[in-house]
Amino acid sequence: MIIVQKYGGTSVGTAARIRRVSRRIAATVKQGHKVVVVVSAMGHTTDRLIALAQSINPEPPARELDMLVANGETITAPLVAMCLQGMGIPAISLSGLQAGVRTSAQHSRARIEDIKPDRILETLRDGKVAVVAGFQGVTADFEVTTLGRGGSDTTAVALAAALKADSCEIYTDVDGIFTADPRLVKTARKLTHIQYDEMLELAAVGARVLHPRAVEIGELYGVPIHVRSSFHEGVGTMIVAQVPMEDRQRVRGIAEESNVAKITVVGVPDRPGIAAAIFEPLGAAGISVDVIVQNIGRSRRTDLTFSVAQSDLKAAEKLVKAAAKTIGATRVASAGGIAKLSIVGTGMLGTPGIAGRMFRALADAGINIEMISTSEIRITCLVARDQVEKGVRILHKTFDLDLE
Amino acid sequence: MIIVQKYGGTSVGTAARIRRVSRRIAATVKQGHKVVVVVSAMGHTTDRLIALAQSINPEPPARELDMLVANGETITAPLVAMCLQGMGIPAISLSGLQAGVRTSAQHSRARIEDIKPDRILETLRDGKVAVVAGFQGVTADFEVTTLGRGGSDTTAVALAAALKADSCEIYTDVDGIFTADPRLVKTARKLTHIQYDEMLELAAVGARVLHPRAVEIGELYGVPIHVRSSFHEGVGTMIVAQVPMEDRQRVRGIAEESNVAKITVVGVPDRPGIAAAIFEPLGAAGISVDVIVQNIGRSRRTDLTFSVAQSDLKAAEKLVKAAAKTIGATRVASAGGIAKLSIVGTGMLGTPGIAGRMFRALADAGINIEMISTSEIRITCLVARDQVEKGVRILHKTFDLDLE
Repeated sequence: MIIVQKYGGTSVGTAARIRRVSRRIAATVKQGHKVVVVVSAMGHTTDRLIALAQSINPEPPARELDMLVANGETITAPLVAMCLQGMGIPAISLSGLQAGVRTSAQHSRARIEDIKPDRILETLRDGKVAVVAGFQGVTADFEVTTLGRGGSDTTAVALAAALKADSCEIYTDVDGIFTADPRLVKTARKLTHIQYDEMLELAAVGARVLHPRAVEIGELYGVPIHVRSSFHEGVGTMIVAQVPMEDRQRVRGIAEESNVAKITVVGVPDRPGIAAAIFEPLGAAGISVDVIVQNIGRSRRTDLTFSVAQSDLKAAEKLVKAAAKTIGATRVASAGGIAKLSIVGTGMLGTPGIAGRMFRALADAGINIEMISTSEIRITCLVARDQVEKGVRILHKTFDLDLE
Repeated sequence: MIIVQKYGGTSVGTAARIRRVSRRIAATVKQGHKVVVVVSAMGHTTDRLIALAQSINPEPPARELDMLVANGETITAPLVAMCLQGMGIPAISLSGLQAGVRTSAQHSRARIEDIKPDRILETLRDGKVAVVAGFQGVTADFEVTTLGRGGSDTTAVALAAALKADSCEIYTDVDGIFTADPRLVKTARKLTHIQYDEMLELAAVGARVLHPRAVEIGELYGVPIHVRSSFHEGVGTMIVAQVPMEDRQRVRGIAEESNVAKITVVGVPDRPGIAAAIFEPLGAAGISVDVIVQNIGRSRRTDLTFSVAQSDLKAAEKLVKAAAKTIGATRVASAGGIAKLSIVGTGMLGTPGIAGRMFRALADAGINIEMISTSEIRITCLVARDQVEKGVRILHKTFDLDLE
């Protein structure tokens, strides 16, 4: 079997941790598997390199910043390879370029366009472990790029797809994917399986274990992704196309995201092109807009409310105020201190009344719902931030997710 | 004019020093020159990476060590490029691979085989400074290599050759090449010019300013090398094919090297192949043998004495003892505490009596000569270490090198 294993920055943060990770890799090799390892930068290396860059140029150009931070992963990879060799396990390290990771040219947020895994396959044929620097690639012109958030996860799953690997193991500091954040809900259970689509929805509304990009590639190429702890041997959560039938009937997880703010544009003229005028500048500035609600107003004017990350509020408000002036809206109001509370599960596709149960449970607990947004397998409510933890616990119980 | 400027690890050791170096580069650009910059790793980065590697694997494999330490230079290069951009000077950084530096596959001591400077030339045509990571290259298979000692100097001079640059400036922490080490001889003078061959001889016997590899490439391709201080604007020493005629008449410099030891193989049978049996194992172990003297002995047996670096003595002794046993020599003796004292200059080619003046001056000062070795433009004497500094001062005076 070909197995891809990805170890994050915490797992390789010190020499001692690199030794521990290497022992784990060695054990997998000794089970007779061909192993490809993807590593992140050690601990806070990336942050330190960025701080150094900013001390030299407060706005470092993206191309040079990519050249700089890519060193983080090309430091870890040879250290792991030489550790394995010291244990008698043949291994070589490969940069993104050497591993054949070809990307688009958008520096700091490049997309993987193609992987030519010849060199990795040759390494495996030679009976060696390939230790690949994650998070990085090169353009067709050999320009060094980085993949942005979730970059190393994306490298791992994309390599698994290109190699037709039997499994892609993502080692992390949690035990797997849970029905809710175990720090908030004592009765939260680890899921043995979750579907790609469910994981994507969970990741979109606050579950930070695995980046949606990696999950999307997994879904597209049918790569089974095993999210598991780097601290012990226990199995984690398998992300797959279809979970066992019984699990498909249910709400599978509760997610929450606390640092949310909302912006309301009051008195928006009701004519075509207005929404574009407001949201296009936000998109251009890289600000993600989340839940959008448009109230039907009187006299050809409406109110438009949407949520953004708390950290984007200031920048977003400035852009929205400019747009509001242009389109002739009455005024712009904003408020922080809110949170997203979501239920996710393919179960709700065939089960009517899920939304009703959610709203009733929150109402009975005295939690006011400010806005609602839904997908086919997700319902998200915006609530006051100081009520969200209570809401998670209530919904976890309401949808029978508590440990039996 | 195309100018290549090389800045060593001390010159780029901190963010503040990178800013100073960048101002110097900017000034050269503003004079209308096309500038290619070669940088080393910041300060002690390389040593730190090697220590990290050794904490993980006490004998790190050379390929992985090259992958690791190459990051030192690819960290500096983008920092300098982004500093220049912050000053309004267009610049990009290039790795050894991107700069077209193709090397042999001998990891940790690769030789530059070829430079394809297309990307650098394109960068210069675009009106940008190319900031190249020194000390590194890639093989034809994209394996990352490093060049070993003097690597960044070698990169700089080789790039200057490939680009047909008008000058190659090596910025260092000394003012240039001196008639003797100014720390030992107060009256030492900075040479305005020195010939490649003289510089090679000086470097071989203790002058550490510039690595002989870089000088050899300079000589081969006729690249004028300007060794100068990174701390001030003053001119340094030009290394060229021919110095002004008057300087060609003289001894040009006195060099010394203190950490030398000698090994004597006593009672060597006088038959063919004996020297090879002793020196081949040393060569294979990477131990440089310096001055060799063979005394004519009685009864078909001779004594063979040679010098090695003090740091190689232990390893060398072990190998020589094994060889001595094989060839049936009587015994092996060794001693540390000696030093090399050399005079260098093309002047001695056409001037008889130079050697005699040297030996006489040392004898008059009570300095005993243990061994002698010569080239066409150099005479080296091995003397007691505690007499070498006095020897340097006496020879500096004897050959009229004292400041007038």
